[in-house]
Amino acid sequence: MKQNLQNLQLPGIPLVLSGPSGCGKGTIVKALLRKYPELFALSVSATTREPRPGEVHGVQYYFIDRKEFEGRIADGQILEYTEYCGNYYGTPKKELYERTMRGINVILEIEVEGAMNIRRLCPEAVLIYVLPPDAESLEARLRGRGTNTEEDIRARLATAREEIRLLPAYDYLVINDDNPSCSAEESAEIAADRIVRILEAESRRVSRNLENAVHFFD
Amino acid sequence: MKQNLQNLQLPGIPLVLSGPSGCGKGTIVKALLRKYPELFALSVSATTREPRPGEVHGVQYYFIDRKEFEGRIADGQILEYTEYCGNYYGTPKKELYERTMRGINVILEIEVEGAMNIRRLCPEAVLIYVLPPDAESLEARLRGRGTNTEEDIRARLATAREEIRLLPAYDYLVINDDNPSCSAEESAEIAADRIVRILEAESRRVSRNLENAVHFFD
Repeated sequence: MKQNLQNLQLPGIPLVLSGPSGCGKGTIVKALLRKYPELFALSVSATTREPRPGEVHGVQYYFIDRKEFEGRIADGQILEYTEYCGNYYGTPKKELYERTMRGINVILEIEVEGAMNIRRLCPEAVLIYVLPPDAESLEARLRGRGTNTEEDIRARLATAREEIRLLPAYDYLVINDDNPSCSAEESAEIAADRIVRILEAESRRVSRNLENAVHFFD
Repeated sequence: MKQNLQNLQLPGIPLVLSGPSGCGKGTIVKALLRKYPELFALSVSATTREPRPGEVHGVQYYFIDRKEFEGRIADGQILEYTEYCGNYYGTPKKELYERTMRGINVILEIEVEGAMNIRRLCPEAVLIYVLPPDAESLEARLRGRGTNTEEDIRARLATAREEIRLLPAYDYLVINDDNPSCSAEESAEIAADRIVRILEAESRRVSRNLENAVHFFD
């Protein structure tokens, strides 16, 4: 079918956001959802672990039991999952495709293993890795939280050191700047704007427009 | 060497702009150079064809003779070249690398054959194809110039129809919108802004940042 290429409504993009503990990705996700509510939605994962006090089904996670989770895997309702400390964590297909079909970019805030699964299963996804400007700044952020023990901070830095080896499998690196004159929220807003411009550029990729452009002269 | 990833100066990007005759790419190039003079420079090609009245050496082209051109090919000074209607047209390496090294994005307004050469020789280049919103609009722009014969218009449309088959070899498709309320210059400025945001996103590609990011924990 012949298309006018101006103002086409393209499907939304599955957006994987990863980064070491302390990089500020949680604050960036909040900034994306607050500043661009019409562009983004958050994918809620399913898990078999018990809800912690204050956690709500359908908000932090879909809390389901092991039998239910395995049934959904068998039915093909789970796009990807991992097992961690004896519990399943997974991405329900519905979370992703119902909204991307309506033009909404769906954020998956997941760890590197899940990100690699999405890369394989969902080639249209964009994978962004978030880092602070340098390692000192990462450590300072972890300490600044005040809730982590020294041992915990060491463990998180060691994990970050391991995970960064998978950076080449990501598409983009977004730095969450560290400006003395900016609050964490203001820095996260700047990083969120960078992510929005990356998705705008991605929407102009030839690979995402070929089906429409191929009929240009029909 | 350890790096702070905030405000890093990256090399400029070689930016190939192609598109059918009448798509408005010349006006877009002018808009990029006028609106973002600190970000962009235009690569001037070398050619063995005779200068036309009003053409200036070093502005439209570097006009050099056949012996000189072939000498430069032999010396490795020409990045890529094609022969067309008995004349050489080529991109001097100096045009590109002297400026990208200083962080300037260098625009190459070249045809599909040259673009494919750049793709092969210069993997860091970004290839953008410019199209109007539809084929009617392309034809209207060609007629609107008032300087083309009917035969000429037919020939240009036939070439466009052939060339668009190479669209999958480009990275991005930028539509030069056709709004009744906008002049050609205003539309070109909107397209130029799209290109600037594409280059901003490209500067955050992991592949362009790996050398710096790999030393994050050193």
